[in-house]
Amino acid sequence: MINERVPVVERILGANERLAADNRARLDEAGVFSLNFLASPGAGKTSLVEQTVSRLAGQLRLAVIDGDIATSLDADRAAAAGATAVQINTGGDCHLDAVMLQGALDVLDLSAIDLLIVENVGNLVCPANFALGTHRSVLVASVPEGDDKPYKYPGAYRGVDALVINKVDLLPYVDFDMEYFQRGAAALNPGLATFPLSCRTGEGLDQWLEWVTNMTRHFKTTRGM
Amino acid sequence: MINERVPVVERILGANERLAADNRARLDEAGVFSLNFLASPGAGKTSLVEQTVSRLAGQLRLAVIDGDIATSLDADRAAAAGATAVQINTGGDCHLDAVMLQGALDVLDLSAIDLLIVENVGNLVCPANFALGTHRSVLVASVPEGDDKPYKYPGAYRGVDALVINKVDLLPYVDFDMEYFQRGAAALNPGLATFPLSCRTGEGLDQWLEWVTNMTRHFKTTRGM
Repeated sequence: MINERVPVVERILGANERLAADNRARLDEAGVFSLNFLASPGAGKTSLVEQTVSRLAGQLRLAVIDGDIATSLDADRAAAAGATAVQINTGGDCHLDAVMLQGALDVLDLSAIDLLIVENVGNLVCPANFALGTHRSVLVASVPEGDDKPYKYPGAYRGVDALVINKVDLLPYVDFDMEYFQRGAAALNPGLATFPLSCRTGEGLDQWLEWVTNMTRHFKTTRGM
Repeated sequence: MINERVPVVERILGANERLAADNRARLDEAGVFSLNFLASPGAGKTSLVEQTVSRLAGQLRLAVIDGDIATSLDADRAAAAGATAVQINTGGDCHLDAVMLQGALDVLDLSAIDLLIVENVGNLVCPANFALGTHRSVLVASVPEGDDKPYKYPGAYRGVDALVINKVDLLPYVDFDMEYFQRGAAALNPGLATFPLSCRTGEGLDQWLEWVTNMTRHFKTTRGM
């Protein structure tokens, strides 16, 4: 059974890679810098989207594509924070893929966007295997999930470009060894840009927003925009 | 691409269902009552395993099968709490399936077990689609994940037999509307046995342990054991 499954999965992934490259070319041409947010359910992806959108709305033109199994709760929150928001309901699929992103890009006016945030389905495993075509991936971890997560979900930590450690305001109330957590992440992904913060209290958000702004500006500057 | 994928997935699921039925027959014959724990990463499945094992060790003979992408951290914790523990590393797969459980059952002495707890991979989506053959499924939710999870992950809430709401000790520090959360769960799964508790403080654990003990005793009694 295992042998039978492998070639099919490879074929699907190959098609996905090609579509992801198409999505990337389209974003590049339009001058849209894009981030893919990955996380467990409840780590705070949507709260980070809300904070990022509401605090950068005066400086950057933002859009958000929200992937969920069901509901438009996340897109509603992103829109309320001030972004153009599109909801994708996967109807059961455990991750976004490049086809789904293509469909969402079709309904956006890319010429009116500087920064696009894609909020993937809450899942630490599957989204890491499906490229979307976005420029950078951001893993949103959270303190109450526990400090062993880099060790147990190495694929998610290995493939990302930035790590947000959300809910640091809960550190006094849970057993979380920040040094052990960061050592695990660093072993998988040396030099990973890391942002401990709290979307609830605002602590640490400035450093994260500076990173996002600098990455977006650098992307546009190198394209003469 | 979608049309091409569906029949293959159905074929894999069909094979899985048959193996799950084999696993169930084997557990029934040996008089082993079995629970499948599902949850997001970090909701506290392993903490609940630890508490359940250490508090019931005098009354029931317990074994734990731990599914993880990588590491044996969870099986180590279950063994330290007093259970016979087997670790399955899926090596990337986002869920356990019936073949993996079959392999783990092979290395256990089922005649020496009353209650088997299977700790699935931390993932709110995929494990719900793969039957293992266990008797009951338990969803472990946690307060810091947020009160919108039943609405966003309906498949996980619809298919389970009991719901643990862990980390109630964090209720004063997060925005979590218990009534909204439980209304969502009840809409998907009316009459679901629900256990708000804290593995950290011990609050609410007695009701959960009573349910587990009663279910196990009832299973054995109806088989004349």
